[in-house]
Amino acid sequence: MTLDNDIALAHALADAAGAAIRPYFRARYDLEIKADASPVTQADREAEAAMRALIERERPHDGIIGEEYGEHRADAERVWVLDPIDGTRSFIAGRPIFGTLIALMERGLPVLGLIDQPVAGERWIGVAGRPTMFNGEPAHARTCSELSRALFATTAPWFCDGFDALRAASGDTVLGGDCYNYALLASGHVDLVVEDGLKLHDWAALLPVIEGAGGRMTDWSGDVLAQGSDGRVIAVGDPALLDQVMAILDRG
Amino acid sequence: MTLDNDIALAHALADAAGAAIRPYFRARYDLEIKADASPVTQADREAEAAMRALIERERPHDGIIGEEYGEHRADAERVWVLDPIDGTRSFIAGRPIFGTLIALMERGLPVLGLIDQPVAGERWIGVAGRPTMFNGEPAHARTCSELSRALFATTAPWFCDGFDALRAASGDTVLGGDCYNYALLASGHVDLVVEDGLKLHDWAALLPVIEGAGGRMTDWSGDVLAQGSDGRVIAVGDPALLDQVMAILDRG
Repeated sequence: MTLDNDIALAHALADAAGAAIRPYFRARYDLEIKADASPVTQADREAEAAMRALIERERPHDGIIGEEYGEHRADAERVWVLDPIDGTRSFIAGRPIFGTLIALMERGLPVLGLIDQPVAGERWIGVAGRPTMFNGEPAHARTCSELSRALFATTAPWFCDGFDALRAASGDTVLGGDCYNYALLASGHVDLVVEDGLKLHDWAALLPVIEGAGGRMTDWSGDVLAQGSDGRVIAVGDPALLDQVMAILDRG
Repeated sequence: MTLDNDIALAHALADAAGAAIRPYFRARYDLEIKADASPVTQADREAEAAMRALIERERPHDGIIGEEYGEHRADAERVWVLDPIDGTRSFIAGRPIFGTLIALMERGLPVLGLIDQPVAGERWIGVAGRPTMFNGEPAHARTCSELSRALFATTAPWFCDGFDALRAASGDTVLGGDCYNYALLASGHVDLVVEDGLKLHDWAALLPVIEGAGGRMTDWSGDVLAQGSDGRVIAVGDPALLDQVMAILDRG
């Protein structure tokens, strides 16, 4: 199996997930009527089912770990990690800044990551040893060596222990965003994202995208993220920010 | 001057602002180089200048109040209120959820409001006595009579006194969003927005959009918003939520 074949499959998975998700985006429903399954649940399930079916057909020996349907052959040498909708609240609210996350792990490390925004038609793909691509063009994180000038993005203070200190030290702070913050970091519009409580399916696809754009993504000790990491992540566009961020989190 | 002429002008203003803003969206710049004027500043100024020139040509007797260039004939019977980019941080971060806000005030009350998202090509327009339109189709807020089920959206806790109590009482909370939250409320995807510190140019365009979609937008006492209001606003998709929200803000 060549890497190019895996890249092609990742794109096919994102296409399938997007086709499943788009009909549910901004679906109308009144909150008076309690539906058995919310649009987000339906969209999540159908998107993951579509991706799993493709993987099982195209890569019968690979494993799968998905947010909705759990693990299948998770001890395989190669494992696909799927989050059909990251940014559930944005999806529910009708904001086109949620994402489908697809990663390929080899021996516990992500070697391919894809972030897809199926409404806006935006796709970032990162592959170990290659430049990250955004809609077919190379993506580059920007330089910003001083935290006091950095744009810090994070989904919510309650998903980011140490938030107040980071906000005080950063140039500016913007909330909301989920996986989209990391994608925009890879494209050079955001300098820093810090979060805690991330599961494997939340971060595995982000790492190759960020590192292939020249950024860094580590745990809160600056160590490489791997299966079993504690879910606390730092992503920086400029590697020079990493020590400054860790110093603040240490004091927090 | 007929109302239809004013509606046509509002659309022309939004078109002009969008044409000025789009080239600056996701413009590349490294934060090492301190620019004299940031892309957002440039985009803001050019968009407002384009709108003011159109108003001065088409409605020489009307007043203008703009975020960037201040007041001109602000005591006129009819005053256009302009915010070229609401959601500056989203714009800077490369998120397509900022907006251009255009309102027409008559004797201190907004009679026309327009919210434009120039990257996604999304436009909401509300006119007193007419249904709110989203990209040419009627927009409707949704029913949700219980706060405990409501989706509460607000830009940041520090722009919303009483945030913790509102978050605890609401069904779910999503952060970030600025004017886009109010637009999505008018389209039935968000149930509640509460903010403080809003200036006239931040809220004037939102009110006709929300009320024409069946929602309500008031100050924190439930009173009508007018020029001179204190900048504390509540917007609800279902009017039944208003008393519940005020009760919580009273206790806060």
